[in-house]
Amino acid sequence: MRKVLIFSILLMFCTDVFSQNTPAHVFTKDSLEIRKIYDEVLKNGQGYEWLRDLCLNIGHRISGSESAEKAVFWAKNIMEGLGLDRVILQPVMVPHWERGAPEIAYVQWGKEKIPLELLALGSSPSTQGTLTAEVIEVADVEELKLLPREKVEGKIVFINMPFNKAHIHTFTCYGENYSARRFGPSEASKKGAVGCLVRSLTHAGDDFPHTGNTGFDAGVTPIPCAALGTASSLKLHDLLNSGKKVSISMVLHCQSYPEKLSYNVIGEIRGSEKPDEYIIAGGHLDSWDVGHGAHDDGAGCVQSLEMLRTFKALGYKPRHSLRAVLFMNEENGLRGALKYAEEAKKNKEVHLAAIESDAGGFTPRGFTFENNMKAGRALMSWIPLLEPYLLHRFIEGGSGADIGPLKANGPVALFGYRPDDQRYFDYHHAASDTFDKVNKRELDLGSAAITALVYLIDQHPW
Amino acid sequence: MRKVLIFSILLMFCTDVFSQNTPAHVFTKDSLEIRKIYDEVLKNGQGYEWLRDLCLNIGHRISGSESAEKAVFWAKNIMEGLGLDRVILQPVMVPHWERGAPEIAYVQWGKEKIPLELLALGSSPSTQGTLTAEVIEVADVEELKLLPREKVEGKIVFINMPFNKAHIHTFTCYGENYSARRFGPSEASKKGAVGCLVRSLTHAGDDFPHTGNTGFDAGVTPIPCAALGTASSLKLHDLLNSGKKVSISMVLHCQSYPEKLSYNVIGEIRGSEKPDEYIIAGGHLDSWDVGHGAHDDGAGCVQSLEMLRTFKALGYKPRHSLRAVLFMNEENGLRGALKYAEEAKKNKEVHLAAIESDAGGFTPRGFTFENNMKAGRALMSWIPLLEPYLLHRFIEGGSGADIGPLKANGPVALFGYRPDDQRYFDYHHAASDTFDKVNKRELDLGSAAITALVYLIDQHPW
Repeated sequence: MRKVLIFSILLMFCTDVFSQNTPAHVFTKDSLEIRKIYDEVLKNGQGYEWLRDLCLNIGHRISGSESAEKAVFWAKNIMEGLGLDRVILQPVMVPHWERGAPEIAYVQWGKEKIPLELLALGSSPSTQGTLTAEVIEVADVEELKLLPREKVEGKIVFINMPFNKAHIHTFTCYGENYSARRFGPSEASKKGAVGCLVRSLTHAGDDFPHTGNTGFDAGVTPIPCAALGTASSLKLHDLLNSGKKVSISMVLHCQSYPEKLSYNVIGEIRGSEKPDEYIIAGGHLDSWDVGHGAHDDGAGCVQSLEMLRTFKALGYKPRHSLRAVLFMNEENGLRGALKYAEEAKKNKEVHLAAIESDAGGFTPRGFTFENNMKAGRALMSWIPLLEPYLLHRFIEGGSGADIGPLKANGPVALFGYRPDDQRYFDYHHAASDTFDKVNKRELDLGSAAITALVYLIDQHPW
Repeated sequence: MRKVLIFSILLMFCTDVFSQNTPAHVFTKDSLEIRKIYDEVLKNGQGYEWLRDLCLNIGHRISGSESAEKAVFWAKNIMEGLGLDRVILQPVMVPHWERGAPEIAYVQWGKEKIPLELLALGSSPSTQGTLTAEVIEVADVEELKLLPREKVEGKIVFINMPFNKAHIHTFTCYGENYSARRFGPSEASKKGAVGCLVRSLTHAGDDFPHTGNTGFDAGVTPIPCAALGTASSLKLHDLLNSGKKVSISMVLHCQSYPEKLSYNVIGEIRGSEKPDEYIIAGGHLDSWDVGHGAHDDGAGCVQSLEMLRTFKALGYKPRHSLRAVLFMNEENGLRGALKYAEEAKKNKEVHLAAIESDAGGFTPRGFTFENNMKAGRALMSWIPLLEPYLLHRFIEGGSGADIGPLKANGPVALFGYRPDDQRYFDYHHAASDTFDKVNKRELDLGSAAITALVYLIDQHPW
């Protein structure tokens, strides 16, 4: 009960209506420092212009590509301009998969060729010429698993699983439908399918296909697989509903190549009191190979850079060492994340906390926390300081793929920055994830939120 | 202290981290009914398609225009299709001001004509041909008031007051800068100015001018006045900073005409227990005469219609009478709002509560409340029911211009629906406020939030 009461009293400050009654002593140095952080980011923030440069002058940057290499040196160059104590390129071998020439797909419908919009899934093999086969539709992977082999053999499986519109959080939809893209092609191959098409994981009603990685279980033959745009999925569904047999012809040119050397890019301000304890904020520098990778995850990269810039601009001397970590290869391998955790362990770098921003550059909602409940309780106690800045939602939950491997190193406090997610999957992994979809103020509010959290952790470690 | 404790315990439920521990009995009928409302809106909502129709087939609709009249019958037609108990066209006389042909403005700079993007402010007179005069820049209305008359006389006053980037809420910026547009031209005229240009009230860095209404104090000669795009404002500022005299030539064709007959459009479901007590939700049907009036306030109109549609679809029998009220002439006169309150008083219609949506169709944040503190406390007690739906921010504050006049009728509880406001003033009163700027899910979440609040008021009046 005592705990409940303490929480209750803390939570009194959660709602603006009470803030006018907040005792003066709560508005401490911390609240003034956080206000300074927001002033600096909102008035002088560079994140948006950095993102413009990354998106328009480098563009998308899948692991192993020339543009990913450019992005590494772009990030290093920005970090070197910030007057940091260290800038590190951390070598890591990454997968190298290429889409090749644009895909082609159509249904031959009498004399008409009905085109379909699709993008090969990451790790898909090519069709080696034109693949033509009859299509069979399933609602999800479970239905596919239950089908007898003879219904699937020699066919292209179409997994037509729409996002559930009733969910409030779009990440719930993604979590629910993820298996279609990640495991569908492998399951289809196990039943003898020659190809697999997955309806895009999105609420958007347009026809941009949303790619993403897939994979095949050990011993399973990889088959050509692709994401189908929403409108194309509805079109294909209608054709199948006509009762006639439907065949698709498709050409995918994608191919895997030998691994390549790439880098995580790390910028560091050394701590004044505990330089061997680290607080890091990060996003991933690689993207899918369409659009600009603006929300996913150019936004998280520039927000992490902006955190360091802001502390330098304010002349803040952190007690712990602070890092922005731009991870390589989140999208199709997670090699950068694994390498970072491995090196941290090897070098006995104690990580106090890691914050990941990989949910887009949208207007702020809050933070998730995991892996260290003392840190979670500390976060709850900071609500009165964060809540005036549109940060209302603080829940225990997954933080992010790139900081996840740090769990193996101990009770590192992991935080996920959580902006509003309504529009995230409109653009996620699609050609529509472009710079113009990012709003400067929304991006900046995220940078400031992350910087404020780094500040609070630095000042009040649990 | 007891009150504090009760609030504290209520607020325990405000933060998701605790919801897993919420006792079962809290998840009452209300929570199930609200879930049904969200299911209906998110799965079957018509608001987005109605908005598409309004924006693309009728377009902008300033009071007194042909398109405003079309919008009245468009709304009536939708209401009649919903099987309501009553659909009312409430006559009201409205101002009729027309922009006329597009404005022209430029600075003659040596041999070069440097064009400026501007839109006449509502109520501005025309320039009656080309007005050419020297420009003088001021930072705000206060600076203008302090200038000696001889510095202003015969000149065009340029009020170059940018939004303060450091504010977290963009409505704070609007409140701070509003005086420039509303009072600047009148103050300029008092000092003998022949025209007035006001930097657009926006954070956007583009060159869309943002119009809006102005007015002149009694006895003050109206002078031509216009909003200048942000880029044009920066350009003009630079020219003035060169030290040379800067003259602007501008042509405004706008003109005021005699008042016209128009209508508020009201749809009603009669209450089963207290039919003479009303709960209303509304937005305004008129817009400025550029763009589509999509966020301002097509969104609020279709959300109010969606509230009625949803209750009909769910077969919900309200205890009180429910109305959607689409007000006419919010933008340049508020005549519809004044008429509605006047008629309500005359007809002894007791208004229990009014909810206004006039802050755009963006992702939800919460509700403001005013004019009835019992209702405010009731709202606070409903937080646990609303918070799972991205509604976190409940503060005492202004609700909206159209329901404001109801205050004169008694302690009517007034609520303002508050979506996220970061992008609102990017589009507000500008040609960029078009249908494509509205996201279906964000719009629908707003409709459902309003419907849920109407439901709670209907079930649990204070």
